[in-house]
Amino acid sequence: MKHLVVFTPSGKRGQFETGTPVLEAAQKLGVDLDSVCGGRGICSKCQVTPSFGDFPKHGVSVDQSAVSTWNAIEQRYHDKRGLKPNRRLGCQLKIQGDLVVDVPAESQVHKQVIRKAASSRNIEMNPATKLYYVEVLEPDMHEPKGDLERLKTALSEQWKIDQLDAGLSTVKKLQSILRKGEWSVTVAVNSIPSENISRIINIWPGYHDASIYGLAIDLGSTTIAAHLTDLSSGKVVESSGVMNPQIRFGEDLMSRVSYAMINAGGAEAMTVEVRKAIDKLVIDLAESASINKENILEAVFVCNPVMHHLLLGIDPIELGQAPFALATSESIYLNAKDLNLLSLIDDARIYLLPCIAGHVGADAAAVALSEQPNKSEDLVLIVDVGTNAEILLGNTERVLACSSPTGPAFEGAQISSGQRAAPGAIERVEIDPISKEPRFKVIGSELWSDEIGFDDSTKKIGITGICGSGIIEAVAEMRVAGLLDESGLIGSPEATGTPRSKPDGRTYSYQLHTSNDASQTAIQVTQGDIRAIQLAKSALYAGAKLLMDEMGVDSIDKVVLAGAFGAHISSKHAMILGMIPDVSLENVTSAGNAAGTGARIALCNINARASIEEIVGKITKVETAVEPKFQEHFVAANAIPHKTDPFTELNKLVQIPNHSFNALSEKNGKMGRRRRRRA
Amino acid sequence: MKHLVVFTPSGKRGQFETGTPVLEAAQKLGVDLDSVCGGRGICSKCQVTPSFGDFPKHGVSVDQSAVSTWNAIEQRYHDKRGLKPNRRLGCQLKIQGDLVVDVPAESQVHKQVIRKAASSRNIEMNPATKLYYVEVLEPDMHEPKGDLERLKTALSEQWKIDQLDAGLSTVKKLQSILRKGEWSVTVAVNSIPSENISRIINIWPGYHDASIYGLAIDLGSTTIAAHLTDLSSGKVVESSGVMNPQIRFGEDLMSRVSYAMINAGGAEAMTVEVRKAIDKLVIDLAESASINKENILEAVFVCNPVMHHLLLGIDPIELGQAPFALATSESIYLNAKDLNLLSLIDDARIYLLPCIAGHVGADAAAVALSEQPNKSEDLVLIVDVGTNAEILLGNTERVLACSSPTGPAFEGAQISSGQRAAPGAIERVEIDPISKEPRFKVIGSELWSDEIGFDDSTKKIGITGICGSGIIEAVAEMRVAGLLDESGLIGSPEATGTPRSKPDGRTYSYQLHTSNDASQTAIQVTQGDIRAIQLAKSALYAGAKLLMDEMGVDSIDKVVLAGAFGAHISSKHAMILGMIPDVSLENVTSAGNAAGTGARIALCNINARASIEEIVGKITKVETAVEPKFQEHFVAANAIPHKTDPFTELNKLVQIPNHSFNALSEKNGKMGRRRRRRA
Repeated sequence: MKHLVVFTPSGKRGQFETGTPVLEAAQKLGVDLDSVCGGRGICSKCQVTPSFGDFPKHGVSVDQSAVSTWNAIEQRYHDKRGLKPNRRLGCQLKIQGDLVVDVPAESQVHKQVIRKAASSRNIEMNPATKLYYVEVLEPDMHEPKGDLERLKTALSEQWKIDQLDAGLSTVKKLQSILRKGEWSVTVAVNSIPSENISRIINIWPGYHDASIYGLAIDLGSTTIAAHLTDLSSGKVVESSGVMNPQIRFGEDLMSRVSYAMINAGGAEAMTVEVRKAIDKLVIDLAESASINKENILEAVFVCNPVMHHLLLGIDPIELGQAPFALATSESIYLNAKDLNLLSLIDDARIYLLPCIAGHVGADAAAVALSEQPNKSEDLVLIVDVGTNAEILLGNTERVLACSSPTGPAFEGAQISSGQRAAPGAIERVEIDPISKEPRFKVIGSELWSDEIGFDDSTKKIGITGICGSGIIEAVAEMRVAGLLDESGLIGSPEATGTPRSKPDGRTYSYQLHTSNDASQTAIQVTQGDIRAIQLAKSALYAGAKLLMDEMGVDSIDKVVLAGAFGAHISSKHAMILGMIPDVSLENVTSAGNAAGTGARIALCNINARASIEEIVGKITKVETAVEPKFQEHFVAANAIPHKTDPFTELNKLVQIPNHSFNALSEKNGKMGRRRRRRA
Repeated sequence: MKHLVVFTPSGKRGQFETGTPVLEAAQKLGVDLDSVCGGRGICSKCQVTPSFGDFPKHGVSVDQSAVSTWNAIEQRYHDKRGLKPNRRLGCQLKIQGDLVVDVPAESQVHKQVIRKAASSRNIEMNPATKLYYVEVLEPDMHEPKGDLERLKTALSEQWKIDQLDAGLSTVKKLQSILRKGEWSVTVAVNSIPSENISRIINIWPGYHDASIYGLAIDLGSTTIAAHLTDLSSGKVVESSGVMNPQIRFGEDLMSRVSYAMINAGGAEAMTVEVRKAIDKLVIDLAESASINKENILEAVFVCNPVMHHLLLGIDPIELGQAPFALATSESIYLNAKDLNLLSLIDDARIYLLPCIAGHVGADAAAVALSEQPNKSEDLVLIVDVGTNAEILLGNTERVLACSSPTGPAFEGAQISSGQRAAPGAIERVEIDPISKEPRFKVIGSELWSDEIGFDDSTKKIGITGICGSGIIEAVAEMRVAGLLDESGLIGSPEATGTPRSKPDGRTYSYQLHTSNDASQTAIQVTQGDIRAIQLAKSALYAGAKLLMDEMGVDSIDKVVLAGAFGAHISSKHAMILGMIPDVSLENVTSAGNAAGTGARIALCNINARASIEEIVGKITKVETAVEPKFQEHFVAANAIPHKTDPFTELNKLVQIPNHSFNALSEKNGKMGRRRRRRA
C-alpha cells in the first residue's frame, strides 16, 4: 500500500510503500537529506521532524499512526547525544501513512551558511570533501584483490561512487584501519567535478564521529590569516593570523621580488619561510580548536600574485618587471605534499584560486567571488586596500580589474607616528575647524579623548601611534579645518592660527597629541606623512578613474570597501581626501575581509570554484603600470581641492566632484617619477 | 595539380597538391612518421628515403623531378650531423610528382625494438612520454594569461594536445626556460589514455637535441636491476644492478616482514633504504651513460608484493600471514616526489605493474606481459625462480598463477660452499658414472677443469664456491652417477666406490674440488646441501603440479624458464632433479630476465600497461600456502627417483615420469613440517 509523502521546505513529494524509511524516500525524490552512514542508524545526520495535522496546502492530513514508533536505535542515540524535541532519525522512521516531513537546515547537505555582512549572499554548502561510512568485504585468498580494491568496490556498491583513486598516505594506513574498524570504515572522498577526479583522502576505523575541516587561507604580504572551517556545517570554528615571516626579506612585494632577483636561492628561502609559517598557523589552529589535524582535509588559498608564486615555489622575478607575466594564471589543485606542508596529511587537497593578471591576484579573484560585481545591476566599484589596492569595477555587462601601487601608508607604515591597527593606536580623529583643536579615539577605548575617563581608559594601553584609518581622518580633518592647503602643505602657526602647527625643518607638522607623561610619545602629522598619504590616495583614485575611463563612464553607482582597512575607514573622510570617486555616502558599504570570504566560499562550495574560474576568464584586465592615462590621473589626483567648508555640509560636499585637473607642481612631477621606478 | 604518393612499408597512399611537404602528406594519411619540431626542419626525426624508378606494384613510376631539390635546411643538418645516403627530411621534401617514399624504421614512432630471446615477440614502441617542440606567444599585458596557459594554447594549436596539466616542478622552471629559449621550447608530455591525463613533465629551451629516457626497474629482494632505456628508440643504453640494502634487515622476504612486525618503524626504515639504493642506482646509471638526469622522465617498477609495499611505504605485515591481503593490487601511477625519489625530477612518472595476489606480485605480472601465456595455443608453464618461484600455467583459454617458497638454495645461498653467480663460482658440473670423478667449469673461464690451461685461466679468479646452476648440476650428476640414492642420501665410500665420498658427521659429503694450494678452499656437496636442494625443488615442482591439478591436466606442452637463474640452468639437470614437470627437452626454453623485459615493455608501450592490467584481472590465483594438495605434492616430490642410467640415454629418460608417489620417510615428514612453518 502506498502513501503520499511531502518533504518541506522543498515541497518534493511522492508515493511510497508502507515501511519505507524516510531517508530512502528522500533519496529517491532527490530531497537534500544528509547521511554519512548510509541508513545504518549510526551517524544521525538524517534527522527529520514529522509534522502532524491538516495540511490543506499539500492536500494531506497526518496523524501519529503515519510514522513508525520510536525505536531502540533512536533511543540509543538520544541517550548518548540527545535529539531535539520531535526529531526522528530519517533512516529509522518508517512511512506508515500519508506524511509531511520537515528537513531542518542542519540535516541538509546543501545548507545555507549565514554571512554576517548584510549586503552579502549566504554561502550554499556543497563541499568537495564528504564522509562516507562503508562496510568492506574481508580479504579472501581465492579472490586476491587488494584491500583498496575491495574498499573501492564497496564505495561503488554502497554509495555509487566510481572512478575513484586513493592518495598514497591513505593507502599506507588503509590495512591497519580496516582491521581496527573490523571492515567498517569511514572514508573522506574528495570529488572535483571539473577535474573528473574522486579521491579517497583519509580513512578512519568504524564510524568517524568527528567533523572534518578545511582551511580558508588569506595569504597576505603582511599577514597570513586562516579560518578553520567545518566542512559539513560551513561554520568557522577558529580563526587566527600570523605575520608573514617573509617581511624580513622585504616589507612590500616589490622589495621581496628584488630580494629574489639579487640573492641566489632568495625565492626558495622565502618559500620555505612562508610554508613554515602556514604549518605553524595550522598546528596552532588545530590545537586551539582542540581538533585532530588528521581531520583537516582541504585548504583554499587566496593571495596576490607574488605570494601565489612564492607559495608554489616559483621565482617571482617576472612579476617585478613588464609585462608582469605570471608563470601560471589558472586555478591550481595540489596535494599538501606537493607544497611540503607538513602540518597537513600528505593527501590533503590544496586549491589556489586563479589569478586575474600579473598585478591582480587570486585575492582579487576571491573578492570577485565574494562580492560578485558580475551579478550587480548597478555599476559597482570594489576596492580592496592593502599594500597594493585591487580595484574591480563592473556590473552584469562587464567587469574590469586593476591593481594600483598604493604603498603601505594606508596601513600606517611609512608614517612618522604610524603603527598597525592595534591597542593604543589613534583610529578616529576630529579637528574643530574654529579652534583647530583635535579630539580622537584610540583602539582599546570606547571614549573620545575629550571625554571624562579617557585618561583612565588608556592608562594601560597607552597612546602609541596612529593607524591607517586614523591618519586618513587626520589628514582629511586638517584639510577641512584649514590646516592644509590644496597642494597638501601644512600651514605655519601664523597662517593657521594654532600653536599645534610647529616648525619641522623647512616645513611644519601638526601636533595631534602631546603628553606631560614623559613615557608617552608625542604624536604628530608631518609634511612627509601628508605626502605619503597623497601618493597613496592618488594611486588608488587614479586606478579607479582608469577603470571608469575603460568602462566609458563618469560616475558609478556603488562603492564597496573590502579588506580590514575598508571595514574601519570612514567613507566620508576617504571621499574628502579623494581616495575614491564621488558617490552618495549611503552607497558606500564595507564588505569586511572579502578575500577571506571568497576563500571560504571556494572551500565550502565546489561549484563556486568553477564559477570564479569562469568569471576570472571574463574579467578585463587594465594594466596601470603602462597606461599613460594612469600617470595623468595620478598626478591630477595629488591635490586635496577641498575648501574649508564646515563639517555639517559634508554630505552635500561629497556629491560634487572633488578633483580638479590642475597643472602639475614640481613636487607632483617628482612623485610621479618615484612611482614609475617602483613599478 | 595532384600527385599520387605511396608510403612504404605501410602501403598508405593518397593524392597531394604540388608543393605539399612529405611530412604533411604522411600526417594526413596517418603514416607513422615521427616529428618533434612539427615540420620546422629542426629535429630531423622525419627522415625519409624517396624511391625512384618503376613500381608496378604501386602502379607508379617515379623520376627525380618528383621531389624538390635538396635545400639549405637539409644541407645545414647534413653538415652538422650527417644524413645517410638518399635520406631527405620529410618536412623539407616537397611533392612535385608521383612519388614513392620509404619511412625507415628509425623514423617511425611505433618502431619495433628487437628482443634478443628468439622465442619472444618484439616490443612495439608507443611510449607514454613524447617530446614536442613548440613556439609560444610572448606575454602581453593586455591579455594577462600566465606563461603556462600560453604554452598550453600553443600545444593545443600546434600539436592538438588538449586536456593538459603541468607538474609543479615544470611550472617552477617554466618562465626562465621560455625566456632562455626565446619563446621556443621543447616539452615532454606524458599521456596516459586509461587515466585520461596528459601532463607536461619537463621543459627545455629551444629544440631539445637529446634523447629522453625511462627506467625499467626490477626491484628484487636481493638485487635491484635497472635498465636505462631510450624512450624514442627503445634501446637499453645502460643497465646496472645493486644489492638490495634491505638484506641487512633480513635475507628473505619473510624475515623482512618479521622485521617490520617486531620493530616499530622497521618498515619505514626499509622503505628509506630501498629508495636510497634506487636513487644511487639511477645516479650511477646516468653518470655511466653520460646523460643528464633531467632527461629521465619515467620509471616502471616490477617487484614482488613485499618489495612493492616497502617501495610504496606500506607496512607489509599483512603479507606475512593468511589471507596475505595486499593493501592495493591494481597498477599505480605516482610522481617521483610521492616516493621521495630525489634522483628523479619531482614530476617524473612512476608506474607499478599490478600485483596478481599477496604472494604473486608485479614481477609475475611482468613475466606474464613478457611471455604472454594468454596468447599461447600450447599449454605453457612459466617458472621464474628466485627466493620465491613464481609459476604461471596457461594458454589462450585460461591462465593460472601461484608462488612457491623455494627458499634461496637455487641462488647458491644456504649451501655449504654456495655463493652467488660471480667469477670463481662453479657453474657447470659433470661426473663420470664409472670413475665418479668430476669435471667442472667456473664463471670467468671458458675451459673445463680437466682441459689444458684451466689452472692458468682460473689463477686470478680462484675457485671460490658453487653457484645455483652449479649445485643443481652437481646434485643431478651425483644421482645419475649413483652417488645418491632415491631418498637423496649420499653413499659411503664403500657403497659408491670413490674416496671423494667422505664421512661428514653422521652422513657423507662429496668432494667436488680439492686443491694442494692452501689458499684455495675445498668445495664439497654435503648431505645438508642435498636436503636444501630437495626442499627447493619439491616446492617448485609442487607449485607446478598444483596448477596442473587446477587446470585438470597431467602434462604440459612447453616450459619457459625465466629469470637470471632460468637463463643459466641446464634443463636436462633440472628435469633429472624433478624441478619441473616432464616435457621433451626441445620444448624447454629460457626467457632470460622476463620480469625485467616486462618492465621494459610497459615502459616502452603505454598500451601494454592496459593490456597487463586486463590480463592480471583474468589470471586465476592458486594459493599454495593453504592448499592441502600442495603439501602432498611437496612431500611426494622430495625423492630423486632416477636410476643409474647412462648419460647417453638422458633424452629418453626425461620423457618418462620421474616422480613416484611412494610412502613418506620420517625425514620427508620433517621437511614437510619445516616448510609449513615457513609458509
